[in-house]
Amino acid sequence: MTASVREPQQDRSRATRERLLSATVDLLATRGWAATTVARVAEEAGVSRGAAQHHFPTRESLFTAVIEEMYESMTTEAGEALADVPAGSDRIAVVVDQAIAIYTGKPFKAALQVWSAAASDDALGDVIRPLELKLGRAAHKFVVAGLDPDGTRPQAHRLAQITLDLARGFGLADTLTDDSKRRAGVAAAWVEQLKTALG
Amino acid sequence: MTASVREPQQDRSRATRERLLSATVDLLATRGWAATTVARVAEEAGVSRGAAQHHFPTRESLFTAVIEEMYESMTTEAGEALADVPAGSDRIAVVVDQAIAIYTGKPFKAALQVWSAAASDDALGDVIRPLELKLGRAAHKFVVAGLDPDGTRPQAHRLAQITLDLARGFGLADTLTDDSKRRAGVAAAWVEQLKTALG
Repeated sequence: MTASVREPQQDRSRATRERLLSATVDLLATRGWAATTVARVAEEAGVSRGAAQHHFPTRESLFTAVIEEMYESMTTEAGEALADVPAGSDRIAVVVDQAIAIYTGKPFKAALQVWSAAASDDALGDVIRPLELKLGRAAHKFVVAGLDPDGTRPQAHRLAQITLDLARGFGLADTLTDDSKRRAGVAAAWVEQLKTALG
Repeated sequence: MTASVREPQQDRSRATRERLLSATVDLLATRGWAATTVARVAEEAGVSRGAAQHHFPTRESLFTAVIEEMYESMTTEAGEALADVPAGSDRIAVVVDQAIAIYTGKPFKAALQVWSAAASDDALGDVIRPLELKLGRAAHKFVVAGLDPDGTRPQAHRLAQITLDLARGFGLADTLTDDSKRRAGVAAAWVEQLKTALG
């Protein structure tokens, strides 16, 4: 009890910030870049406009924070997923599924909006590029460790890159239509390829 | 000479339309969705605003036309590329290169902007989905024919899908940074995979 009594304002502030960031991801993924304004985010989060502007004075500061958190959580999830990968024959299928999950969830759909806007906004591009690189490295490390737990298959590095580029392509294909059925067939074919290539 | 004297107005009108469509692709790819207005397109194309509005009364009519032409030319190029694929051992590498070219050129960067905007615009999504499907089918037909010219390798269908999803992932990776060097290594690894899988 003591901690929650001692820092209620700090806790409330943190909770408000989290709600704003979560509403931003939702809005980006479902309503797109142009519709995602600080005012609209405040409304969706059930936070007063004043409180929202206290946390994020500009639209740019909101996007920087949301992108950082988004990539942070995608990176953490990729890392955590590694611990859950089973030993044995299903291992490759599980790793491929988890790589695909990174690029087909709501955070990626939100990220795609930011990514697309950044293609013509250098300042935004400068914010995203290092985060993008960090996520890419974490995802690659995860897939390599999953495909080659013993570190005895040098070909795993390139195969991990193909897996992640493929997963990114799946993510893009999933934005306008539910592509899950087609994707499952292609992913299964890729898992077979990996099994052969990894011996 | 006779034809060009007989239909100068029609020719001029067609040329104006082409200039407007070409300026739209340029603007989408370099300045993004929000910046691509009919007024800005007219300015870039060196066409009066009145003439631009005669051809495209609304922003929506401009995008519909540009998307149709963009997908039409990507589809045609994929078909034409097929005729140029050499027989023999380089064939697979050439097909993979051409598949990647579909998704890494300027038309794809422009299409990505429209695609991204369509994720939160149902009317635009309805325009794009059938064109997207048409392009996807043409590209798939091209890659299958390239990988399996004799029609004797049923696995070519799935391998063509992997090739195209991979190419789409490369396209997305290329929007914020020049990814060509990394991509070349990953593509070469995929070509080796294909050679093994196709026997």
